[in-house]
Amino acid sequence: MPIVEINVWKESIDEAKKEKLIKEVTKDVSEILGAPSSVVEVIINEVPKANWGKGGIQASRWKPEQFTGK
Amino acid sequence: MPIVEINVWKESIDEAKKEKLIKEVTKDVSEILGAPSSVVEVIINEVPKANWGKGGIQASRWKPEQFTGK
Amino acid sequence: MPIVEINVWKESIDEAKKEKLIKEVTKDVSEILGAPSSVVEVIINEVPKANWGKGGIQASRWKPEQFTGK
Amino acid sequence: MPIVEINVWKESIDEAKKEKLIKEVTKDVSEILGAPSSVVEVIINEVPKANWGKGGIQASRWKPEQFTGK
Amino acid sequence: MPIVEINVWKESIDEAKKEKLIKEVTKDVSEILGAPSSVVEVIINEVPKANWGKGGIQASRWKPEQFTGK
Amino acid sequence: MPIVEINVWKESIDEAKKEKLIKEVTKDVSEILGAPSSVVEVIINEVPKANWGKGGIQASRWKPEQFTGK
Repeated sequence: MPIVEINVWKESIDEAKKEKLIKEVTKDVSEILGAPSSVVEVIINEVPKANWGKGGIQASRWKPEQFTGK
Repeated sequence: MPIVEINVWKESIDEAKKEKLIKEVTKDVSEILGAPSSVVEVIINEVPKANWGKGGIQASRWKPEQFTGK
Repeated sequence: MPIVEINVWKESIDEAKKEKLIKEVTKDVSEILGAPSSVVEVIINEVPKANWGKGGIQASRWKPEQFTGK
Repeated sequence: MPIVEINVWKESIDEAKKEKLIKEVTKDVSEILGAPSSVVEVIINEVPKANWGKGGIQASRWKPEQFTGK
Repeated sequence: MPIVEINVWKESIDEAKKEKLIKEVTKDVSEILGAPSSVVEVIINEVPKANWGKGGIQASRWKPEQFTGK
Repeated sequence: MPIVEINVWKESIDEAKKEKLIKEVTKDVSEILGAPSSVVEVIINEVPKANWGKGGIQASRWKPEQFTGK
């Protein structure tokens, strides 16, 4: 029954990462909450960088040095 | 003002089902809460099976016998 | 696997309505999508009127004639 | 750390509006909460009109006179 | 119909800020999207600092110098 | 920038589990996506069992044998 929604940049994820994210996050949630992994649901929401702002600026317009974090 | 978000598999829905879902869920919410149906909003969020995990496995990788439920 | 989130005013719901909402919305979603009802999850999110705005005004400050809808 | 999600019709938005929305909403939230704008995140969720219902009817089926509001 | 959800720390907001947030964000969204303000809904979701993590640490455990941003 | 929302039963979590969930999920997301952990935000949403339905029944009304999963 735990339900996890993960919002990521569409440009930062691929099939292998989706598979891994779902597997690892489910394992953590299951172990920490003591719930069987069969009841954990994970939804990955892919958001284009143009739709994601931080500091008032679309991620699609960030300069290279901003890509490392913040 | 009630706002309903329905997350479904992208592969499991079509135009006719969207129309019906919005109509029926609005009717229920309106009747049970005693709010006019005109203020009920419903958003359908279509999630690809590859982005939806249960039991740590992407729905796109489930085996046929798992499709009936769980 | 369909996951439904219903946002309602905290002040507009009680235990009987919660029970009914969950029962009826699950039935609709299950029938329309052709999924067993056992896989449908519904979460009711109770929002205080002071945290809910429409037309730029908190619902807690609305005048009586606005309560019928809009 | 404030996180803002804005749900809009896919058909009602373009790049210039996205840029403006992110800039202006970030400014508001930052000023009112007293948080630096660098920690405000905004996500724009574009929903097709066919997936958005109000009054039990998909927005894609609304008649012209309903487009002005309600 | 635009629906805005604003997630903030429960400890960082009061009634006056809620009123202002709803008013200002509604005004921006209405002007930028060209929708009447009467159809804009805003929901404020208050999250306790203990339930909010950044950098893997609960906001309730952050040290004073971390409060300015990041 | 990855933002994770975890919905759990209010009755199934305590401070120690919150701390652990935030720490471990942040670590996973950071490693798999290759993003610094400092930009990962996690929000835990505690939902009372009475507000959570599965199979059309509130979790607060489930019988003991249903607690192990499904």
